[in-house]
Amino acid sequence: MRTMLVVLAMYSLAVFAEVQNAPLNLMPMPANIKMGAGQLGVDPSFSVAISGHKEPRLQRTVEIFLDHLRRQTGMLPLDMKVSDSSTGTLLIHADSRSKEVQELGEEESYRLEITSSGAKLNAPTTLGVMRGLQTFLQLVEATPAGFAAPAVNIDDKPRFPWRGLMIDAGRHFMPLDVIKRNLDGMAAVKLNVFHWHLSENQGFRVESKKFPKLHEMGSDGLYYTQGEVRDVIAYARDRGIRVTPEFDMPGHSTAWFVGYPDLASAPGPYAVERKWGVFDPAMDPTKEHTYHFLDEFIGEMAKLFPDQCFHIGGDEVNGKQWDANPQIQAFMRAHGMKTNQDLQAYFNKRVQEIVSKHGKTMIGWDEILRPELPKSIVIQSWRGQESLAQAAKQGYRSLLSHGYYIDLMWPASQHYAVDPMSDAAANLSPEESKRILGGEATMWAEYVSPENIDSRIWPRTAAIAERLWSPQNVRDVNSMYQRLEKVSHRLDFLGLTHNTGYAPMLRRIAGRNASSALQVLADVVEPVKDYTREDTAPAVPTSLTPLNRVVDAVRPESDSARQFSNMVNAFLSGKPKPGTETEIRASLTRWRDNQVELQPLAEKSFLVKEVLPLSQNLSTLGTAGLAALDYLDHDERAPEQWRSQQLALIEQAKKQQAQLLLMIAPAVQKLIEASATPGAASAAK
Amino acid sequence: MRTMLVVLAMYSLAVFAEVQNAPLNLMPMPANIKMGAGQLGVDPSFSVAISGHKEPRLQRTVEIFLDHLRRQTGMLPLDMKVSDSSTGTLLIHADSRSKEVQELGEEESYRLEITSSGAKLNAPTTLGVMRGLQTFLQLVEATPAGFAAPAVNIDDKPRFPWRGLMIDAGRHFMPLDVIKRNLDGMAAVKLNVFHWHLSENQGFRVESKKFPKLHEMGSDGLYYTQGEVRDVIAYARDRGIRVTPEFDMPGHSTAWFVGYPDLASAPGPYAVERKWGVFDPAMDPTKEHTYHFLDEFIGEMAKLFPDQCFHIGGDEVNGKQWDANPQIQAFMRAHGMKTNQDLQAYFNKRVQEIVSKHGKTMIGWDEILRPELPKSIVIQSWRGQESLAQAAKQGYRSLLSHGYYIDLMWPASQHYAVDPMSDAAANLSPEESKRILGGEATMWAEYVSPENIDSRIWPRTAAIAERLWSPQNVRDVNSMYQRLEKVSHRLDFLGLTHNTGYAPMLRRIAGRNASSALQVLADVVEPVKDYTREDTAPAVPTSLTPLNRVVDAVRPESDSARQFSNMVNAFLSGKPKPGTETEIRASLTRWRDNQVELQPLAEKSFLVKEVLPLSQNLSTLGTAGLAALDYLDHDERAPEQWRSQQLALIEQAKKQQAQLLLMIAPAVQKLIEASATPGAASAAK
Repeated sequence: MRTMLVVLAMYSLAVFAEVQNAPLNLMPMPANIKMGAGQLGVDPSFSVAISGHKEPRLQRTVEIFLDHLRRQTGMLPLDMKVSDSSTGTLLIHADSRSKEVQELGEEESYRLEITSSGAKLNAPTTLGVMRGLQTFLQLVEATPAGFAAPAVNIDDKPRFPWRGLMIDAGRHFMPLDVIKRNLDGMAAVKLNVFHWHLSENQGFRVESKKFPKLHEMGSDGLYYTQGEVRDVIAYARDRGIRVTPEFDMPGHSTAWFVGYPDLASAPGPYAVERKWGVFDPAMDPTKEHTYHFLDEFIGEMAKLFPDQCFHIGGDEVNGKQWDANPQIQAFMRAHGMKTNQDLQAYFNKRVQEIVSKHGKTMIGWDEILRPELPKSIVIQSWRGQESLAQAAKQGYRSLLSHGYYIDLMWPASQHYAVDPMSDAAANLSPEESKRILGGEATMWAEYVSPENIDSRIWPRTAAIAERLWSPQNVRDVNSMYQRLEKVSHRLDFLGLTHNTGYAPMLRRIAGRNASSALQVLADVVEPVKDYTREDTAPAVPTSLTPLNRVVDAVRPESDSARQFSNMVNAFLSGKPKPGTETEIRASLTRWRDNQVELQPLAEKSFLVKEVLPLSQNLSTLGTAGLAALDYLDHDERAPEQWRSQQLALIEQAKKQQAQLLLMIAPAVQKLIEASATPGAASAAK
Repeated sequence: MRTMLVVLAMYSLAVFAEVQNAPLNLMPMPANIKMGAGQLGVDPSFSVAISGHKEPRLQRTVEIFLDHLRRQTGMLPLDMKVSDSSTGTLLIHADSRSKEVQELGEEESYRLEITSSGAKLNAPTTLGVMRGLQTFLQLVEATPAGFAAPAVNIDDKPRFPWRGLMIDAGRHFMPLDVIKRNLDGMAAVKLNVFHWHLSENQGFRVESKKFPKLHEMGSDGLYYTQGEVRDVIAYARDRGIRVTPEFDMPGHSTAWFVGYPDLASAPGPYAVERKWGVFDPAMDPTKEHTYHFLDEFIGEMAKLFPDQCFHIGGDEVNGKQWDANPQIQAFMRAHGMKTNQDLQAYFNKRVQEIVSKHGKTMIGWDEILRPELPKSIVIQSWRGQESLAQAAKQGYRSLLSHGYYIDLMWPASQHYAVDPMSDAAANLSPEESKRILGGEATMWAEYVSPENIDSRIWPRTAAIAERLWSPQNVRDVNSMYQRLEKVSHRLDFLGLTHNTGYAPMLRRIAGRNASSALQVLADVVEPVKDYTREDTAPAVPTSLTPLNRVVDAVRPESDSARQFSNMVNAFLSGKPKPGTETEIRASLTRWRDNQVELQPLAEKSFLVKEVLPLSQNLSTLGTAGLAALDYLDHDERAPEQWRSQQLALIEQAKKQQAQLLLMIAPAVQKLIEASATPGAASAAK
């Protein structure tokens, strides 16, 4: 017995060492992991046996799993199979069936045991099996002995029950294939709600049989048929994803009024909006006709979308049409309403009754939170943890989107740091805390097209998915970035284009010249952040403006710039890895000299021309960084005048050009600042 | 008048200069091009007006054109449109309707005039419009003033009426999306016949309602439904492509016999074949039952496939089942047949009568050419121009595939040099020459999967397409390669994966490490040529063998190696561009040092491990090349012993490793050989 304990202790140490050496590339990180010894080979003879509860959805889940396993290992349709017998490389057991319509809070836990002789996946329902199979997929990679998954014991369940991605198909229509491949991406990182933003000023995107002028006149012909909607819902269901539709009202609704102007608060005619922003048109909350219409419409959509939740938007009504309409003003006076917020609360209450009548739970943005509304509704917060906490305290369930606006071009680390239970939400009582359902990444679509939307969603959304699934204490940013890169590459095999689309877009921009110099620049720039793109637009952007510029092709987050910054930090810390300075010098030299290569491209293509000033700044930064390194190398204090000159150039280089930011500027600034202190130089050498 | 002539003369000179400076990136090169002055802008307001004959196919053609134009310029669905009026940026006029079923030899000519104020495309039928629109697409690129097409006058028509691509969906099944994106690729380079190889020993790929056991038992569930077949035919028709089906008989037919063993010449049971090669099973040509079956089957397929031609294969019958069957032997004796060829000729004659009865023209491989058969049949030659010419002399129509076998991994230049009218075919009479219909690239599928098939077809097939469309004197290889690169990149926007799939496949091979060192190696290797892969296989390959090795990921032709070879040639010619030696040195240094980077990957992944000897050889070549350069630089004769040592290493490095060839070996050899002559050194400096 004693010997065994010693062996176990030694084994644990060995496992620990192994884990340290080769952390598992899992994202989201599971709740509990115990490493085992050895690995399970995954070759063409791999098979899956299903025991326990059986249902068609489970069968399809396993087929999808095998398809993805084949893709990521480069195997063929005749390789790997579902076993008819009770034996297989991977044994799957679900205790019972999943719900006919996937529910909020439905059990998603699973237990995955992999040994060198086989694997077992146990879960209460099919839903947990889906999550466990995604973990298995992430464990398989090329090893010295073939493709294999390491021996491991994983016991896992989500932290939050609502882990969503919203795609805005209103502003720019997203074809079915875009939606489907993103559902595959969502499933890969265990997201479970696809929030489909289906109506906007710029487009009404679903076929309505009751009110056909909605899609016929409000969509420019770009809408989903009801058959396609059902197809998406079935596709999502087979991946453990609920589909919550959003029809934004009473604002953001110009596209409805093209076919049905009598819904609006001002006379028509209306045209599909082409510009971006908040506009005046809003439904008339004072006419009974409005509620008759919505009753029929919501009734139709409630049947089409089986999900329990029905999103009515409810955001950003500027109230101008209401202010200008005497009948609406009279109505408000007659009912003692003092503000447009009062009027909107009345509207929401009426709509909530309709939604409820059709058996659904209403969900809406912050603005719908008013004491008149029942506690059953769900609030989606774009305002932050403060409003999230307020809602929870008042007894409402809520989810966080503030901090997860992926259209704002933040780095993954910034989203990753946002926790639904932080700040005001950190001090909630246990009961109140339970009302925080989770969160949602929101892909607003002013500046995305089917071509570049994947690169705005992925891989950053995987970091948000980890925040919502994994234990709160999983927060190591370096580990996150390491694993994010692997997840990103795995998504390639699902047909997502965030990596593969980059080079073709740059080649188009470069025109008849080679695009390599353009890529050197593109690799270290990012689009401007937050709403700066709006503010700095060279011309008023519309839904017809091509999204083919450098700002549309580059990634929201520059890996090259982040890695350069890490190298500079390591160098200045005095404890860099060998070769760090050489790498820094090589990068700076490449940037300094790139301008000469880029210039001829700029003369040939208008799309390159607009980034020429940026390229000039890149060259300047390269030169300045190299000079600073020289001072540091020679243990020489850089003259103050030179430094202040260089820092002025850096400030200049930090300004947006062509709506792009040069992301290496801060790291070069550090080098220049360090060159004031010869001490830094000796430490760094 | 005189002034005008002078102006015209000056204009021509200017145009000539412009053409010289910026050759049009067209492939296939049109028959007649006259450059104009200026360019036509292509922006979101671009519109197309259709005059002349109208038909739904033309309407769809224009919609497809606009879709592709938007993709290649990064514009949106709301940008660019079909004009309702008679005015538009591009005016299209077709004189008359195209045939209901596209015919062999149907008129494909067009005339395209582009000026700075607009463009006109005129053609006898919709088919010519399609070809002209592809030319227009190739003319549009980013310019200093936005996307634009240069002013030009093009008068164009094909050299041959049959310009095909065969895809073998029998050996490895190719899903619908693979077929469709390749049809888009075919249309882009004006190919007009999709030859669909639908049955093989390894699979019967079409649903048969009359004989359902064909697809149910002969396909492993991997087949096209009749609905899908109709979908592909309609898709191809909208792109001006005929779909000729091939059902190979009497050999290559094991998959038929799984469900219908009584068709075979030996008793069953049969199983779907997993190995590659020529196998014994063959239909029994002596049983009337065979012909009854084929009559019904061909009748069904003749209705499903509207094309005039029906391909019966007819190749590679080894005759063993016939030799071993006493009844067949008795039949042969009774009918005075001396050889199995005689028996097959009898079979072909019977089948030809059936094909003819169902209103189709029979086509088959070389082997079917026998005097018993009527002159109406078409011969597809895999044997070469000799057999092509023989067929033509005997009055048969024929097309060339010998030299266009893209599965053999030849460089584009080698296929490009093959002309159907060369060698024996060059001496045919004008009347005989007309019987040479054209040619077909053949994508045999032993070693292609849906993941890598595009990279085996493209871009090389575009060079074959040019051979078959453009005038015979278009043969400049350098120009071809320049234009091929542009065509290749344009195909990315049609969803073809020959470029985008490369990095993900390499990353999968590299496993958890970065793949950059692997790519340095992969960029300069090619798969072994001809049938060497068969001969050098480490284990017997089957249809279940994963196609995920380095040999499956690398391109059939290494651009890097070709460019390196060009640089070395320029350097040794004594008239290199400035910087050539620096570039050669940089490449050699990178190759020399790459082994150190690759080693750790090889220790982590079995798929990298097998290319480690190749990487060692690359390093050796780098070292040897650098040393040779040093001798050349110092005007020093390299010692004979050193040279012979190095040349021995080169010979070693030229041998296949892991079924791959190191393509830079010949260029490094040239450097070493030159280092024997100090004269070469001074000239080169």
